[in-house]
Amino acid sequence: MSTDEYDLIVIGAGPVGENVADRAVQGGLSVIVIESELVGGECSYWACMPSKALLRSGQALRAAQHVQGVIGGELDPTEVLARRNSFTSDWSDDGQVKWLQSAGIDLARGQGRISGEREVTVTDDDGTERVLRARHAVAVSTGSDAAIAPIPGLAEAAPWTSREATSAQEVPASLAIIGGGVVAVEMATAYASLGAKVTVISRGGLLAKMEPFAGELVEKGLRADGVDVRTNTGTARVDRDDDGVTITLDDGTEIRAAEVLAATGRQPRSDDIGLETIGLEPGEYIRTDDTLRVQGHDWLYAVGDVNGRVLLTHQGKYQARAAGDVIAARANGDEIDDATWGRHVASADAAAVPQVVFSDPEVASVGLTAAAAQDAGHTTRVVDAELGSTAGASLHADGYTGTARMVVDTDRDVILGVTFVGADVSEMLQAATFAVVGEVPISRLWHAVPAYPTMNEIWLRLLEAYGRQSA
Amino acid sequence: MSTDEYDLIVIGAGPVGENVADRAVQGGLSVIVIESELVGGECSYWACMPSKALLRSGQALRAAQHVQGVIGGELDPTEVLARRNSFTSDWSDDGQVKWLQSAGIDLARGQGRISGEREVTVTDDDGTERVLRARHAVAVSTGSDAAIAPIPGLAEAAPWTSREATSAQEVPASLAIIGGGVVAVEMATAYASLGAKVTVISRGGLLAKMEPFAGELVEKGLRADGVDVRTNTGTARVDRDDDGVTITLDDGTEIRAAEVLAATGRQPRSDDIGLETIGLEPGEYIRTDDTLRVQGHDWLYAVGDVNGRVLLTHQGKYQARAAGDVIAARANGDEIDDATWGRHVASADAAAVPQVVFSDPEVASVGLTAAAAQDAGHTTRVVDAELGSTAGASLHADGYTGTARMVVDTDRDVILGVTFVGADVSEMLQAATFAVVGEVPISRLWHAVPAYPTMNEIWLRLLEAYGRQSA
Repeated sequence: MSTDEYDLIVIGAGPVGENVADRAVQGGLSVIVIESELVGGECSYWACMPSKALLRSGQALRAAQHVQGVIGGELDPTEVLARRNSFTSDWSDDGQVKWLQSAGIDLARGQGRISGEREVTVTDDDGTERVLRARHAVAVSTGSDAAIAPIPGLAEAAPWTSREATSAQEVPASLAIIGGGVVAVEMATAYASLGAKVTVISRGGLLAKMEPFAGELVEKGLRADGVDVRTNTGTARVDRDDDGVTITLDDGTEIRAAEVLAATGRQPRSDDIGLETIGLEPGEYIRTDDTLRVQGHDWLYAVGDVNGRVLLTHQGKYQARAAGDVIAARANGDEIDDATWGRHVASADAAAVPQVVFSDPEVASVGLTAAAAQDAGHTTRVVDAELGSTAGASLHADGYTGTARMVVDTDRDVILGVTFVGADVSEMLQAATFAVVGEVPISRLWHAVPAYPTMNEIWLRLLEAYGRQSA
Repeated sequence: MSTDEYDLIVIGAGPVGENVADRAVQGGLSVIVIESELVGGECSYWACMPSKALLRSGQALRAAQHVQGVIGGELDPTEVLARRNSFTSDWSDDGQVKWLQSAGIDLARGQGRISGEREVTVTDDDGTERVLRARHAVAVSTGSDAAIAPIPGLAEAAPWTSREATSAQEVPASLAIIGGGVVAVEMATAYASLGAKVTVISRGGLLAKMEPFAGELVEKGLRADGVDVRTNTGTARVDRDDDGVTITLDDGTEIRAAEVLAATGRQPRSDDIGLETIGLEPGEYIRTDDTLRVQGHDWLYAVGDVNGRVLLTHQGKYQARAAGDVIAARANGDEIDDATWGRHVASADAAAVPQVVFSDPEVASVGLTAAAAQDAGHTTRVVDAELGSTAGASLHADGYTGTARMVVDTDRDVILGVTFVGADVSEMLQAATFAVVGEVPISRLWHAVPAYPTMNEIWLRLLEAYGRQSA
């Protein structure tokens, strides 16, 4: 058993842990990260990257086939899976480990468990223990796991989770997906494009946390792609036999599939990291203040999914930049910039979380939905416009359909939230994020001319629908 | 000869004239527009729309073919031309005329000529004259024409201009393009994708008004698409014979082509609109103040290309919104909002003009180039980042290459200009435009999280390269 001291110990070397470590090193601290699986984390090997790699080829082909003048073209599932494999480096983290080295970050492989104040014990595969002490801080960035809903027989049926869905080396003949969130609709889109017969079974609608028209348009899109979508449908039980899986719905209907994907939510990976040694509850989200620090433990930070603020990689990385900087600032005795929108707080977690669902059509949203804005007590006006009404969209794809919504705070004349649903809207989101985060007044946005003919002319439609007042 | 009185007379029913008229009608004025060709103007029939229609199919196919997993696919030039024809409604303006009617705007067909203060005489094809009187204002929005460079033999060789290039009903076997601007590179991209053997001959580099790397990357892209690009090459003369055209370069080299496209700039369409009757110079740009009004003629406005401020359709439409509103406000005796960024001025013409070149790769820029910012006396820092370094770009296309540049005013910590060069960057521009127009401080932009994995993560690269200070 060896003992080592670092300024900062980071548990979890996903994108979030890597960014906390990197910022802290740039702030002059010595840092070690602890990883029990692959450096690079869930996002690199079993989530964002492989899922988008499974989706992109189909998306690109669809886009081409929706334009008159393009003939032929098809998808080769084997090649799509091969491309996905290359994006995960065949599940090798050699490249990421090299990056850690180049960034001056130490790595300990094994399970990291808090074993006291500013102390983490790492247990490697052989059971060897190493005690690490932190001069300044410990940051937990262990992420989240798929949560299997308590549907009778589901756990026993060895369901796919997002991990298996994103890392499968063969396309099953048929795939039943239980759930209606992002994982469900993205994997339905991907596997339908790869030739599987896909069924989606959702207790409610699709994408329930977003604007209602998002789920509606995606449901329509999935149906057009040949997916059997069952919304407002409960699952009574799941049974696996030698030939596959039977999903029995609440109304007694039975659905057969080669595989079943449980896309029924996430849970924090906090059950086996020693939280009990410092009086916190294992298995629960680790709550923090806006500097990502845990109340009552001024040396402890929780960053990314594990704090339950926002379960999105880019938002976790955003938190990581604030956390790495504030940990370094506090260690160095520098001034702390923790006012709203300051350098050391994750203010956007509340006001401006961007999200893209890479389904067909895509959904891109930032900030508050109309319902959320009203619940939060804002005086709002909601403006909708059809993306297909722009010249840019009609050029982009024949028969383009899609919708944009802008939620305006009429007291302050600024935008609280924007949602786009339509083909290839993902890169349009950043403008909305700038408007929301920058709190740019509507009267000024009239001067931000969309290039003609691009789909971004939708901004003009939204502004025209809102009406123009003098500044 | 009949006489009619309107609050506002608009000469030219392109997108700019239509928007001036529409805003004025919404402000309660009576309006007539005069059009000598097709309602909808250059943009609808011989510029933006048909050029993008010629480009989009090839762009979509290229995007698909650059992703492993997509196999096959080809372009059918006949179908591309057919799609382009449908976007120009086969050069019929019936739809646009209906729109004018629905918007409550009167139409006079014929050549409109100013014949005195607040008076315009319209001469139709039969030579019948109609005198129109304006109670409040006359707006000239006649646009611009292709200018044929004074190269010996060029005008006599019956060259294509942007009109013929965008409306051709057959793809020539070979096309020589003289020029290096937007028309040259877009038409080179389009006709190369449609199977023509294309040669581009430019006196200087390509896209000379943009950041230098834009032209360099587009030159590389055109070469990869099989285009013979001759930069820094003068043309000595052009001769047409029965089989086509011979272009003799300054060094004596002869280039043969079936057609030659003169893409050598634009000139204002102001030579035959009666400017001489009010002491203005025919054939010159009609200069205006920021409310688009002509000094010394408080009833006369010039909007769009013809005023020479910015020769881009979307910027003309932007001017048109300001002009239509201010004409109505002045007529109604309402308050005028003509401070910088006010409702009645086209402030963005100086600070924030967006432009997209739909070449391969695309170029999207807004605001000042590094050189222009320096010339304007700003204290700047220029930050470059490689688009291919983002996960989003690597997913978007295999081997993605492209560059982004951000020009920062370090005195005010705001962005003066942004340029993106790469495949499918056009929809990324609006965010840059919001940042420039909104003058959003860099410290705040750190909170505008790009969705992962999209190409917009380039913003993070740019901010990281710039460095982070506390707010």
